[in-house]
Amino acid sequence: MAQTWEERAKEKREAILAAIPQEWRIRNPPNDEQVDVTGNFIQQFLTKREIEITETTADEIVRYTVSGRWSAEEVTRAFCHRAALAHQLTNCLHEIFFDAAINDAKAADAYFSQHKKPLGPLHGLPVSLKDQFHVRGVETTMGYVGWIGTFEGRTGTGKEKRFESEMVRELRASGAILYCKTAVPHTLMAGETINNIIGYTWNPKNRNLAAGGSSGGEGALIGLRGSPVGLGTDIGASIRAPSSFNGLYGLRPSTGRLPYEGMANSMDGQNSVLSVVGPMATSVASLRLITKAILAQKPWLHDPLVHELPWRYEQEREILELTGAIGDASKVGKLSFGILWSDGHVSPQPPVRRALHIVVSALQSQGHEVIDWTPPSHKDLVDGIMEAFTFDGGADIRGAFSLSGEKPSDQVAFFAQPGKEFSASEIAATNVRLRQLRKNYTDYWNSTVKLTTTGRPVDALICPVAPFPAARPKGYLYYGYTGFVNVLDYTSVALPVTNVDKTVDVADDGYQPINGLDKTVQELYDPDIYDGAHVGVQLVGRRLQEEKILALAEYIGKILGK
Amino acid sequence: MAQTWEERAKEKREAILAAIPQEWRIRNPPNDEQVDVTGNFIQQFLTKREIEITETTADEIVRYTVSGRWSAEEVTRAFCHRAALAHQLTNCLHEIFFDAAINDAKAADAYFSQHKKPLGPLHGLPVSLKDQFHVRGVETTMGYVGWIGTFEGRTGTGKEKRFESEMVRELRASGAILYCKTAVPHTLMAGETINNIIGYTWNPKNRNLAAGGSSGGEGALIGLRGSPVGLGTDIGASIRAPSSFNGLYGLRPSTGRLPYEGMANSMDGQNSVLSVVGPMATSVASLRLITKAILAQKPWLHDPLVHELPWRYEQEREILELTGAIGDASKVGKLSFGILWSDGHVSPQPPVRRALHIVVSALQSQGHEVIDWTPPSHKDLVDGIMEAFTFDGGADIRGAFSLSGEKPSDQVAFFAQPGKEFSASEIAATNVRLRQLRKNYTDYWNSTVKLTTTGRPVDALICPVAPFPAARPKGYLYYGYTGFVNVLDYTSVALPVTNVDKTVDVADDGYQPINGLDKTVQELYDPDIYDGAHVGVQLVGRRLQEEKILALAEYIGKILGK
Repeated sequence: MAQTWEERAKEKREAILAAIPQEWRIRNPPNDEQVDVTGNFIQQFLTKREIEITETTADEIVRYTVSGRWSAEEVTRAFCHRAALAHQLTNCLHEIFFDAAINDAKAADAYFSQHKKPLGPLHGLPVSLKDQFHVRGVETTMGYVGWIGTFEGRTGTGKEKRFESEMVRELRASGAILYCKTAVPHTLMAGETINNIIGYTWNPKNRNLAAGGSSGGEGALIGLRGSPVGLGTDIGASIRAPSSFNGLYGLRPSTGRLPYEGMANSMDGQNSVLSVVGPMATSVASLRLITKAILAQKPWLHDPLVHELPWRYEQEREILELTGAIGDASKVGKLSFGILWSDGHVSPQPPVRRALHIVVSALQSQGHEVIDWTPPSHKDLVDGIMEAFTFDGGADIRGAFSLSGEKPSDQVAFFAQPGKEFSASEIAATNVRLRQLRKNYTDYWNSTVKLTTTGRPVDALICPVAPFPAARPKGYLYYGYTGFVNVLDYTSVALPVTNVDKTVDVADDGYQPINGLDKTVQELYDPDIYDGAHVGVQLVGRRLQEEKILALAEYIGKILGK
Repeated sequence: MAQTWEERAKEKREAILAAIPQEWRIRNPPNDEQVDVTGNFIQQFLTKREIEITETTADEIVRYTVSGRWSAEEVTRAFCHRAALAHQLTNCLHEIFFDAAINDAKAADAYFSQHKKPLGPLHGLPVSLKDQFHVRGVETTMGYVGWIGTFEGRTGTGKEKRFESEMVRELRASGAILYCKTAVPHTLMAGETINNIIGYTWNPKNRNLAAGGSSGGEGALIGLRGSPVGLGTDIGASIRAPSSFNGLYGLRPSTGRLPYEGMANSMDGQNSVLSVVGPMATSVASLRLITKAILAQKPWLHDPLVHELPWRYEQEREILELTGAIGDASKVGKLSFGILWSDGHVSPQPPVRRALHIVVSALQSQGHEVIDWTPPSHKDLVDGIMEAFTFDGGADIRGAFSLSGEKPSDQVAFFAQPGKEFSASEIAATNVRLRQLRKNYTDYWNSTVKLTTTGRPVDALICPVAPFPAARPKGYLYYGYTGFVNVLDYTSVALPVTNVDKTVDVADDGYQPINGLDKTVQELYDPDIYDGAHVGVQLVGRRLQEEKILALAEYIGKILGK
């Protein structure tokens, strides 16, 4: 008799667990009282050496591996172990291929022994991948039960467990070691990570809260130091939310910077607002490392949508000079930032407001200027993105769910409900309107040259990632702070700022809500529940300003004492 | 009583003529026997000094104007005069604003007198614009009777005769003088130029033939040296066909290189295959001049779709070094080209075949290699572009015609007929398929590294622009040689090679047609009718390779003795 979808999901869930060696199993899982499973908690299961390796940032790890001081195998085994623990504590993995990884690591070590040089700039570095990447030997389910045993829901394609995404090829060519794929919400269209296969991915710093989404598995995994650097995707929040929720740095590059070629996706072919791929890690240097490594592979020769933009050191240098990191004193100067305290639709909760203040104060104390950001309507941008997301009336998503008959989670139910398909003329009208909104925002950005004292428009915009430090389950009610960036296709980095302190971040009882949604969002803030949670902010730059925004994010991290 | 559309078209047609000063009118228009109106023929109406100025290329003109040796006013008056003649001989203009141009030229001269420096790199250079650019003081009809007196068919927008396209602003900021807008086929969707306002735009070199389209007014105008450099647009052939048909160089850049912001268009918002804007001129140096000038204006800060790609001299240098134009002998090396003799669907007529042979022989005689190009199916690419062009089932185009009730010309009737609109899911499926075709072509291009002896894949592809040297009226039956480039978003330059010689380019009586369409196209070749016509070819590079392909086109021009 045919399996039910519940049986197939359970079988897959158990197969994931079964890929974890017995000696890495947690015999007595922590109960709900253990809210924070990071730091000391997870360290109890690891050796001192494993802790040393896994708490080293990616940029530092490769300094040891490319010089042969650390073996790829030792580094890989340590991260496999910690990733296995992370999964047991938060449900963050979809695919585990530790054996293949250790074999690849051994091969890397053998190469190094023989040639006395590394395979590439990522030699021996474990890199985790969101479960949209195709990697040989394992499946891509993207959280859909109906995709189990298929290639993107289809069988007999010859690609099953064989085909690799373009970026996977480039990572391997750079010497990276691939060892796991991380959890996503089925459909990818949620800021929480949940699906019928692995369940709910919890925030390891505060298991009352979501790890974020859709790159939530990455967020939880890296948050627990089960990976030094991972790759997520972002069409509305999906790199920045899980980065911010887990105390990480995450880069949402502009479209055409990094190769998306050959990855699984939802609503593939919707090309009005494109998903992008980008890195998440515990340091900006780690983001830069992997971005530079991929660009060094000339992805524009292999992905027709990537622009020929090698890493541009001159963009970075300008910031390094202005901030005195390099060059002589004559080049040190003032930076100028916009600050968006509220988008006028849903305001940030107290801890997020405090994080914004911390960043603004730190910048001002260094002599930089911060001006209030009063841009064209963000609501128009957010309305526009929702149109693009519903062009097909949910057809693609319903098709994926119907393969197995599984039930959509509440978090994505909106996108699975039947709606009217847009016609070509309607899509064209949306495209024209979105282009006009982009033009208006560009003009606004240019106009800030009149408000700054630097002779330049603002260098970047500081704004919330979300109204909350992290979403409560089923509580991700507003995407406006990230979605506007996707419509504009701007460069953005999420960066960690502080942690919720229930004694400081008390509820604002006198707050006057802007509207009903704002009221609901504010009421979801509970200092006792949020205590300890990470709080990040977002640094937004213009299109294709990855080098500059990474340099600025690193500088802010430095003056915040990170 | 309200005017009929015929009356409104006639009124506009007469208003265009009326903008030509009496002393520039041709009293005795040539009859049909006068097939070629270029060279000596048009020179009879001009002074020696006017001939000297107007037969100087744009790059040379600015050497005189930026140094103050030639006044902007004198240069502008000469081109206005010659443009006025060109219109009377070929119907190539939609808007004439010579008075505004001469005022702008006087202001440029005054600026130079006062500041002892030019306004910018295009100081005093007349630049003609296809009638999709909005320029203050004049209309944009795009050939539609229903757009007369409106802003893109709408009234009361406040933009009528005021709004300027982004590139117009950039041209003015560079010191260029704008003086006329050139004819297009209504809808823009034809390789011939015809509309109910100005009629048919003839090929000045051979008035049996089309000037090409959709930038056909530009082609005829520059072909007659009524403009030193102009800007056209291209979504399927529209820069390259009129360039080739008129013995010109024309650059079809990749999308996102030059700013399209604020231009009128057909089917605006169809974003699967995008129209691009690019220059047409009598020399590659002229194309380079204007491209560099626009990029120096940092269009990416003003057009949200333009990538931050300043002019990259290093791309050019590689070619200059390989061809020995600069650098030492050790850097001279072999170039490698693909040659597409036929796309297997419609083959080139004898003169085009001969032009391909001329280019191949010239390259081989210089020691370069040319390999046969056997790419993935071009038919799939051409089928894909036709889908994109018919997404809206003709709704946009029928809407534009319905504003006046005018009759579509036979050349565009296909796009005006009612069809079914694509749904969002269908558009998404087309987009996915087009992306796959682009990927396949990219992989094919990379694979040629195995066929060349340079250690690189081919540097560029040589192929026809069209199966014919120029279209005969209503004879533009196949767009496959240009359309595939638009789907791939590759960089392309049309370049002049030779002229039809009826004694050499005899009909190929033994030719075995590939199919019915090929048979029809071959039968349209008549040596007597085509005698003297320009014959060009196309040089195609990968995406965003403008600097490299221009350098290669210039080199080929040089070895051809152009």
